[in-house]
Amino acid sequence: MDKPYVIGIDMGGTNTSFGIVDARGSIIYRGEIKTTGYRTGEDYVEALGTAVNAMIADSGMTGKIKGIGIGAPAGNYYTGALENASNIPWAKDQVVPLAQLVSAKTGLPCSLTNDANAAAIGEMAYGSARGMRDFIVITLGTGVGSGIVCNGQLVAGHDGFAGELGHVISRRYNGRPCGCGRSGCLETYASATGVARTASEFLECKKDTPSLLREIIDRPITSKDVFDAAEKGDQLAAEVFNYTGEILGEAFADFIAFTGPEAIILFGGLARAGQRLMNPVKESMDKHTLTMYKGKTKLLLSSLNDAEAAILGASALAWEDKK
Amino acid sequence: MDKPYVIGIDMGGTNTSFGIVDARGSIIYRGEIKTTGYRTGEDYVEALGTAVNAMIADSGMTGKIKGIGIGAPAGNYYTGALENASNIPWAKDQVVPLAQLVSAKTGLPCSLTNDANAAAIGEMAYGSARGMRDFIVITLGTGVGSGIVCNGQLVAGHDGFAGELGHVISRRYNGRPCGCGRSGCLETYASATGVARTASEFLECKKDTPSLLREIIDRPITSKDVFDAAEKGDQLAAEVFNYTGEILGEAFADFIAFTGPEAIILFGGLARAGQRLMNPVKESMDKHTLTMYKGKTKLLLSSLNDAEAAILGASALAWEDKK
Repeated sequence: MDKPYVIGIDMGGTNTSFGIVDARGSIIYRGEIKTTGYRTGEDYVEALGTAVNAMIADSGMTGKIKGIGIGAPAGNYYTGALENASNIPWAKDQVVPLAQLVSAKTGLPCSLTNDANAAAIGEMAYGSARGMRDFIVITLGTGVGSGIVCNGQLVAGHDGFAGELGHVISRRYNGRPCGCGRSGCLETYASATGVARTASEFLECKKDTPSLLREIIDRPITSKDVFDAAEKGDQLAAEVFNYTGEILGEAFADFIAFTGPEAIILFGGLARAGQRLMNPVKESMDKHTLTMYKGKTKLLLSSLNDAEAAILGASALAWEDKK
Repeated sequence: MDKPYVIGIDMGGTNTSFGIVDARGSIIYRGEIKTTGYRTGEDYVEALGTAVNAMIADSGMTGKIKGIGIGAPAGNYYTGALENASNIPWAKDQVVPLAQLVSAKTGLPCSLTNDANAAAIGEMAYGSARGMRDFIVITLGTGVGSGIVCNGQLVAGHDGFAGELGHVISRRYNGRPCGCGRSGCLETYASATGVARTASEFLECKKDTPSLLREIIDRPITSKDVFDAAEKGDQLAAEVFNYTGEILGEAFADFIAFTGPEAIILFGGLARAGQRLMNPVKESMDKHTLTMYKGKTKLLLSSLNDAEAAILGASALAWEDKK
């Protein structure tokens, strides 16, 4: 390979991290800029491109970079644009041709997709999905996202926005209100926020059940609190994870009937709960899966290092790029 | 093209129909044998291969056939085998390498998949999905089946059995018992059988509502009865279709969030209800779809001729075949 390196850019709501990555998935140089504080997308790319070009020059990698991959909220795989990225002031209600701008500024081919799709490509290139052609990555963070791979290719859908599995309906009646304006979406139950919400509900409904979580009165309960309490043997906290796992497993049984994946891979903050979450998910998934699929789909945790996963995932896009 | 024709074989529970198809989707020769009455899969293929070889010879097409595609229940796209096709005596609880046997008997490359996947490939080659790369075909018959296409390729899943959308869960609580052993599956509501079931429930629950369907007392009500009554202005029968459409539309909203299809195409007996079913499906789909996808996915009826669709669908597999 005459160009054996790629660059991954992870665009978060607050910071944008980036790095030069080799074919084995090691980040060998890295950098960071703020995502906000710019008036326009052009200003942001001016700052980003300058920083990336400096990194390439400083590392002596000029001429050795195959391309750039960007993982960004509301990133469209086909157009390379941010489309109505509501949580970034300079991108809100706008279409910003980010990949094109970055490519012009750096002189390198550039691809873009949303963060969950980047995670899926990252798992395929460097992580738990190496060698797999059919799998689903579920990102469990503040919300629930997904990246779907079929026949070895990312499923982007006809307009570049496929794979919003956090918004399939888990509860059609009396479902929890969701930020999307509907009710009962999977992410209202199975995200970090959903876990905190379940804990609050359980504390309210089971007034006679003692729980360590009742000691938290000066601030909202977080999913981390629930995990810590469960690890200390708190029964109510353990039940919160069982309930979350039950709902995730039900949803996974439907996902399996859809694309028949070899594995479903959990990624993101809530996935750090490990077996505490995986055990009830697995039990529920096995119980609810159609007989013909039973036992055929693995449930795995992401094997990518948390701190590096987003850059690695984005960088893997650049290997995919056929341009 | 030196081999401008393909053969499609539609293997039903009772009869096996086949035909020679040209590139525009016209069936120019056809034939039929019984599916049952054989002791083994080898005996069936002996009869089938003999009939197909005779058709090729009689039509003067020797040397002009590119390959054979077979649509069969429980057909595995990857292995070319029937796996536990429970409704065919000689295939029950067995793995029959059908594509391989037919290929050996005819000397032609042979591919196989299940009937719903064959329908999807057929729509892409000759029907409503021409030119589309991302769509879903839903077959509404005795059951509900599906064929999913992403990035221009059939989604077969890691083991060849993806796409059982009739078995995603529509009602998690008090759902109707399904033949699969679980409850609340889409097909218990949205198949021809489901429509008849809904009619019986409505007649029972709404005892004071008059209906033409109450006159049918000597035999079970069919979905055709419900359609005919609705067309005559019967209110209860119309409500049965509205209810069916509501449930299908809810499910389609979830399907859209999954693979972001350009179209969902309805195929099969119940799809003949046309606008009677399409209107409530469309209304429900629009209502339940996540804002970011609203108005982006077309709802279409299959444009393939009912009597020919299964042979055409199967034949299209042979164009796909890269062997």
